[in-house]
Amino acid sequence: MTEVATLIDGYISMWNETDPERRRALVARTWADDARYVDPLVTGEGRDGIDAMIAGVQQQFPGHRFELATGPDAHHDRVRFSWHLVADGGSRVATGVDFGTLSTEGRLQSVTGFHEQPA
Amino acid sequence: MTEVATLIDGYISMWNETDPERRRALVARTWADDARYVDPLVTGEGRDGIDAMIAGVQQQFPGHRFELATGPDAHHDRVRFSWHLVADGGSRVATGVDFGTLSTEGRLQSVTGFHEQPA
Repeated sequence: MTEVATLIDGYISMWNETDPERRRALVARTWADDARYVDPLVTGEGRDGIDAMIAGVQQQFPGHRFELATGPDAHHDRVRFSWHLVADGGSRVATGVDFGTLSTEGRLQSVTGFHEQPA
Repeated sequence: MTEVATLIDGYISMWNETDPERRRALVARTWADDARYVDPLVTGEGRDGIDAMIAGVQQQFPGHRFELATGPDAHHDRVRFSWHLVADGGSRVATGVDFGTLSTEGRLQSVTGFHEQPA
């Protein structure tokens, strides 16, 4: 795996990690200190804010998992990839695309999520 | 049209405008002063750099036009849309997606382009 592929692999794992301590470790490995996440429904500022935001999404979608759909596709300090949110029984309940910028240390500095319209 | 739709309409027109004075006016209307564009092949810093970059792309693809394919899709100060590059005879020679952030004045602050793989 390239460094960016490893980073985005950890990012997806982070969204799926419901153990607070392990999730927090994944957040710290994935994001820069002063990182920011924003999508149409939720936002998170800094590692603490992002961790709390993910915990909230997990409570809203119990038993669901995020899966990488396409990418990551990266150039310069920019990356994009798409994902599916999959329910307990295996059905896809949402699909989206995330755009990110990387910090000089190779962590995520900023991520913007967009939701695809259901086909 | 929403303000963002008007902005992205002007952005596409800017890429297609080969008259230097009119292109320069579209650049000024579309971008913040200290804007930045980056895609896998070219980059432009500030309005002067972006204008020169577009002139270079136009020389590389004479007779081609950009067309909006999907979007714009916007939330907060973020926008995404996709485009086709169409040759003189009408065939699509490239497709990509642009992801942008907006300045407080509603102009483009930063745009990252990605190229789709040919289907």
